Amino acid sequence: MDIPFFYEADLPVTPGLFTLSEESSKHCSVVLRMQPGESISLTNGLGLSCIGKLVSADKKKTVVQLFDHKQESRTNPQNSIAISFVKNAARMEWFLEKATEIGIDAFYPLIAERTERTHFKKERWEHILVSAMLQSKQVFKPVLHEPVEFKILIQQPLEGHLLMAHCENGPKQLIQSIDKSKPALLLIGPEGDFSPAEILMAEKAGATMINLGVTRLRTETAGIAAAVLLQHR
Amino acid sequence: MDIPFFYEADLPVTPGLFTLSEESSKHCSVVLRMQPGESISLTNGLGLSCIGKLVSADKKKTVVQLFDHKQESRTNPQNSIAISFVKNAARMEWFLEKATEIGIDAFYPLIAERTERTHFKKERWEHILVSAMLQSKQVFKPVLHEPVEFKILIQQPLEGHLLMAHCENGPKQLIQSIDKSKPALLLIGPEGDFSPAEILMAEKAGATMINLGVTRLRTETAGIAAAVLLQHR
Repeated sequence: MDIPFFYEADLPVTPGLFTLSEESSKHCSVVLRMQPGESISLTNGLGLSCIGKLVSADKKKTVVQLFDHKQESRTNPQNSIAISFVKNAARMEWFLEKATEIGIDAFYPLIAERTERTHFKKERWEHILVSAMLQSKQVFKPVLHEPVEFKILIQQPLEGHLLMAHCENGPKQLIQSIDKSKPALLLIGPEGDFSPAEILMAEKAGATMINLGVTRLRTETAGIAAAVLLQHR
Repeated sequence: MDIPFFYEADLPVTPGLFTLSEESSKHCSVVLRMQPGESISLTNGLGLSCIGKLVSADKKKTVVQLFDHKQESRTNPQNSIAISFVKNAARMEWFLEKATEIGIDAFYPLIAERTERTHFKKERWEHILVSAMLQSKQVFKPVLHEPVEFKILIQQPLEGHLLMAHCENGPKQLIQSIDKSKPALLLIGPEGDFSPAEILMAEKAGATMINLGVTRLRTETAGIAAAVLLQHR
């Protein structure tokens, strides 16, 4: 799929004419200078994709003829990562881009006891997820949840594995050994790590403590290592 | 090891007085405002580490008393990554930081047929490796090789596994299945991927083609995914 790939949240499920969003219209007609008759592919980020043949190119209202619809279903298992905000916002955004490329299904911005600052930019972050999804030719956009406090998230009912990565000693498992028939939610703490109380809370909630390797990783690096290992378990 | 951690390439192997480099002296005395009697830890990036007790704090010549030397040996297997330059230099530097945190032993900046630009900044990159090594509490600094052309590198004698990641179809193995008793060198191509000729060259050189997952990854993301999987094989 190497024709230009666009995201349209409200992509119709049936063939017919469709007017691209202003952002897509501009990208199509101004940036890529596409002409009527040329084709793009589109997704709604929910597994639906189709081809769009340009009928008219306009920087605000480019019209395409939609056809060849496909609806994919998510490949299991679902992998979600709850990761603490870090001081440097750029590192968080970088994590979101990379973990999306790697195929993580959902993100929970986490507010833990030692989280030093929060900087939730929903619109900007959604844009990063969309770009990374298109970049990596995927038709599913990860779900970006609202920021949540650790003690709230930990109490929510969860199907599948609850996993936690922390730097304290204690028995830990390799992610590769986690049964992959079930979804997993992995918890990553802030620069100062999870507090002993939070680790205890997670244990009581049935969390499996996991090992991300021998070196000490930054929060966002731990997030990426976890993303790769979750996808390859 | 949560006392301040410093890199000194010429760290003496025996106890005694040692004058820190100007950069370390400044960081110690000005940034951290450390006083005589306080302790730091040091490494030469080659497995040697020791404690240094401040004798005098000076922004240019801070003197420490060295003791408690330890020499670690590298944990096998050695994992090296040869990765093409990418257009965006910041993405390459980001890869170097993350792959160092994860524990990769050596890097080869690669010039492949479709590599669009090269931007080797040896001093700056070495600094990134040192920072990431200290950040992740490691005592081995990865080896940063000079940029090398793909067809030169591929002809060099190699002990261990030669692995290649590319986006073309064909049989591929999972890194996790690669025997970990031997070192590995993994090849990652540019944005435009390796050329068919390069893939053929690698096959002739005995390379194993590896699979980094179902999604299409940017060069630097593929590098990180490979780093994580190599370290966890």
